[in-house]
Amino acid sequence: MAFLDELPRVSTSAEDLAAVATDRSGTVPDGLPLAVVRASTVDDVRTALRLAHEHGVPVVPRGAGTGLAGGAVAGPGTVVLDLSGLDRIVEIDDVDELAVVEPGVITADLDRAAAEFGLRYAPDPASAAISTIGGNIATNAGGMRCVKYGVTREAVLGLDVVLADGRLISTDRRTVKGVAGLDLTALFVGSEGTLGVVVGATLRLRPLPAHTFTAVAAFDSVRAAATACTELARTRRDPSLLELLDGATLGVIDRAQGTDYAARGRALVIAQADGAAAESEIAAIAGVLGKEATWTEQAVDPAASERLLFARRMALPSIERFGRALIEDICVPRSRLADAFQGIEEIASRHGVGIYSFAHAGDGNLHPIIGYDRMSDAVQRAGDDLFALALDLGGTVTGEHGIGLLKRDWLAREAGQDVLDVQNSLKAALDPRGILNPGKAF
Amino acid sequence: MAFLDELPRVSTSAEDLAAVATDRSGTVPDGLPLAVVRASTVDDVRTALRLAHEHGVPVVPRGAGTGLAGGAVAGPGTVVLDLSGLDRIVEIDDVDELAVVEPGVITADLDRAAAEFGLRYAPDPASAAISTIGGNIATNAGGMRCVKYGVTREAVLGLDVVLADGRLISTDRRTVKGVAGLDLTALFVGSEGTLGVVVGATLRLRPLPAHTFTAVAAFDSVRAAATACTELARTRRDPSLLELLDGATLGVIDRAQGTDYAARGRALVIAQADGAAAESEIAAIAGVLGKEATWTEQAVDPAASERLLFARRMALPSIERFGRALIEDICVPRSRLADAFQGIEEIASRHGVGIYSFAHAGDGNLHPIIGYDRMSDAVQRAGDDLFALALDLGGTVTGEHGIGLLKRDWLAREAGQDVLDVQNSLKAALDPRGILNPGKAF
Ligand SMILES: Cc1cc2nc3c(=O)[nH]c(=O)nc-3n(C[C@H](O)[C@H](O)[C@H](O)COP(=O)(O)OP(=O)(O)OC[C@H]3O[C@@H](n4cnc5c(N)ncnc54)[C@H](O)[C@@H]3O)c2cc1C
Ligand SMILES: Cc1cc2nc3c(=O)[nH]c(=O)nc-3n(C[C@H](O)[C@H](O)[C@H](O)COP(=O)(O)OP(=O)(O)OC[C@H]3O[C@@H](n4cnc5c(N)ncnc54)[C@H](O)[C@@H]3O)c2cc1C
Repeated sequence: MAFLDELPRVSTSAEDLAAVATDRSGTVPDGLPLAVVRASTVDDVRTALRLAHEHGVPVVPRGAGTGLAGGAVAGPGTVVLDLSGLDRIVEIDDVDELAVVEPGVITADLDRAAAEFGLRYAPDPASAAISTIGGNIATNAGGMRCVKYGVTREAVLGLDVVLADGRLISTDRRTVKGVAGLDLTALFVGSEGTLGVVVGATLRLRPLPAHTFTAVAAFDSVRAAATACTELARTRRDPSLLELLDGATLGVIDRAQGTDYAARGRALVIAQADGAAAESEIAAIAGVLGKEATWTEQAVDPAASERLLFARRMALPSIERFGRALIEDICVPRSRLADAFQGIEEIASRHGVGIYSFAHAGDGNLHPIIGYDRMSDAVQRAGDDLFALALDLGGTVTGEHGIGLLKRDWLAREAGQDVLDVQNSLKAALDPRGILNPGKAF
Repeated sequence: MAFLDELPRVSTSAEDLAAVATDRSGTVPDGLPLAVVRASTVDDVRTALRLAHEHGVPVVPRGAGTGLAGGAVAGPGTVVLDLSGLDRIVEIDDVDELAVVEPGVITADLDRAAAEFGLRYAPDPASAAISTIGGNIATNAGGMRCVKYGVTREAVLGLDVVLADGRLISTDRRTVKGVAGLDLTALFVGSEGTLGVVVGATLRLRPLPAHTFTAVAAFDSVRAAATACTELARTRRDPSLLELLDGATLGVIDRAQGTDYAARGRALVIAQADGAAAESEIAAIAGVLGKEATWTEQAVDPAASERLLFARRMALPSIERFGRALIEDICVPRSRLADAFQGIEEIASRHGVGIYSFAHAGDGNLHPIIGYDRMSDAVQRAGDDLFALALDLGGTVTGEHGIGLLKRDWLAREAGQDVLDVQNSLKAALDPRGILNPGKAF
């Protein structure tokens, strides 16, 4: 296609194409995309979209490709628009507590830059060291700090977005509040590259907490652990992190890391409290958790805190040491946490698969990880049953990873046809030719 | 029109129509609306919209009519859809910390009901005692607690919405997180009745803080007071309320209430801190404010705290004692707060009008109130200059009241034509016949 030659900073080499054809979902498309545009200016993005729009060629925006839902998977006939080269931190304003960044900035780099001003970028996906801000915005990424500080949406003040036809709009705002017109910013957040391409963002930063204290507690069942987390909510505590790991996960961590978590109990809860009240808050949290715990420990300095978080940070790498991992991401009302863990255990035994589960317990957001060697019907049916479980419990099929390619059928079941129709009509309004990441998200 | 007779719970009596023709913006439409539907069920809303859609008749959704931007103003040829009768608190779940409500619930009633469970509904517009949750959602209302707890958007988990053609959709979610599909909830919040009618809402509740401490400080200039507020941000304090009143406002409060605030300084800052760290936090805040203050005072018990808030609560009523008030609502980056107050003083003297200003200082959200007896060119030009000032300082023409009828021209200047085009295309997608609150918001 002659049109490919007109694209800025384009490559069609098989090696370059193979490098951008999929994401961390492991989805393998039927063949390579047509081309990849490695944008390094906003104008590159505008030109690429204008041309793609003119020729009706589908475009797949791409950050770092760490997505777990297949959102950046690019099949035959598509052009990949790689935003990772737009990676400048344009400004950090330490009075207005905001940052202006390009989309390719690595999440952890922004957090580090903010720290020099006593600030931080609160949303902290576990992929922060490798994912981009643009990808985080497009998926409305979550993380461990969200229980106190909210998800990516709560951190985005305004966006610069290139629309499907190449027009550049700005929903930018440097004020904390603002209600002028429809909230386009919120509509673009989480839209998985289907409504526009994020080329700039004004992000809210938060004060770095003066103190962070950590408490861990082991329990003799995952139900007891989940119930303790629910009890924390009932007692109105305010943890800045609340994670739960089940027995299967503790076992695999021990095997991979040589630790002995499983000897302490069959589930582990890790909690943090931060800010001026961290000390009294963690004491109260430890008091609630301690009631039914088989083992507890606390940490007051950062190094010891990091040691107590070790199990959580090593959960996924440990599972992946022994085979492949289908990483799920369901979210249920906090009050249903114990029921969710029980349901997951039932699904595992029903299908004869191994499921390791850990959760952002404070948000009711569970990651059941199905371990497998080769993809099988049993694994796939177990995955489906996990989604059904989430909906049965009044929850959602995705708490933070997004719909992407993998969960579209489930979105239809969760949201219903009328909601899908509304989503499609909004999509058609912004992208009438349907060139932006078609077949993704909804 | 025969169609009017088909409407449920309809009235066309002049008295009923006059009662719902305008809101607290004081805008007087050219004549009365056609009819008012006093919905008491979701089906009433669906039927009314279906019929209006069929006949192409404009519908003006209405909560309590306390809006200040003219959003609920209903002119000739329109049907008012009064939601205030849908006023049930359906459920309060004290573990998942959420409430399910109908749109006509009075904001303060929900807050009171939540308090019985040790919870509260955080967004607290000054109109909480008279405004409805549906109106709050439709305007994305703010209030004094927003500096710490965010605006209405941050409190809305999911919505039931009747679309222009009478279809009922639910974006409902009982989970804290969820990223399945486009964020329709956020799109409806703040849409001022132009995209759909909110008939149900799932709202996030927050723990009632155990302690709330208050500090006030007077300063010898409004610039000194504003600078102290900016300094609070720089020192990373976390006030749960931060209000600033200028000298003109203190003077009119003294005149109306017999107090002597003006004797203490030419500007007043009121701060609160809440939660487990309230005591140390308020001490730190008082320390920062105290540096340049001419007078300070602190309160630790609720009654004394309420006394210190007296000036803030009495500001608007005091101004309205002596004449009419054009209530403005601009928002600037926090770092520009002092410049905003200075700009307002210049505008007042340039046009020879009296402007009383107070601000949600922690959010950079100012309410310059122009006092007047009869509307004049000078008053109107001063209003326009206030909006221009907000934009000059990198801010917005509305921090919390919305665009409504009154600020449409200014939205165009703030947002630009491309953004307006996008908003209009989304509107057209959801309301192709343009029957929902036409001519409002954008
Ligand atoms: C080990 C590991 C841990 C993870 N932990 C978490 C976690 O804790 N929480 C969480 O939420 N996710 C997590 N993820 C998933 C993933 O990291 C996030 O979804 C992340 O936000 C993706 O960022 P990315 O830059 O890699 O985006 P990509 O994978 O490149 O793209 C993701 C989606 O965003 C779109 N997109 C990317 N950039 C733009 C742009 N500039 N404009 C418009 N659309 C764009 C793409 O089209 C695609 O639909 C994890 C992944 C891994 C591998
Ligand atoms: C004394 C006073 C103090 C105020 N203080 C504040 C403040 O601190 N912060 C603040 O933000 N505002 C404040 N306001 C403005 C006003 O109270 C808010 O905008 C409030 O949210 C309006 O609620 P309402 O029920 O009166 O809505 P209405 O005025 O009836 O309507 C407002 C808008 O919402 C739409 N609407 C109403 N209900 C629905 C529904 N169910 N579905 C769809 N659309 C709907 C209407 O069409 C209209 O566009 C104040 C007003 C007064 C008079």
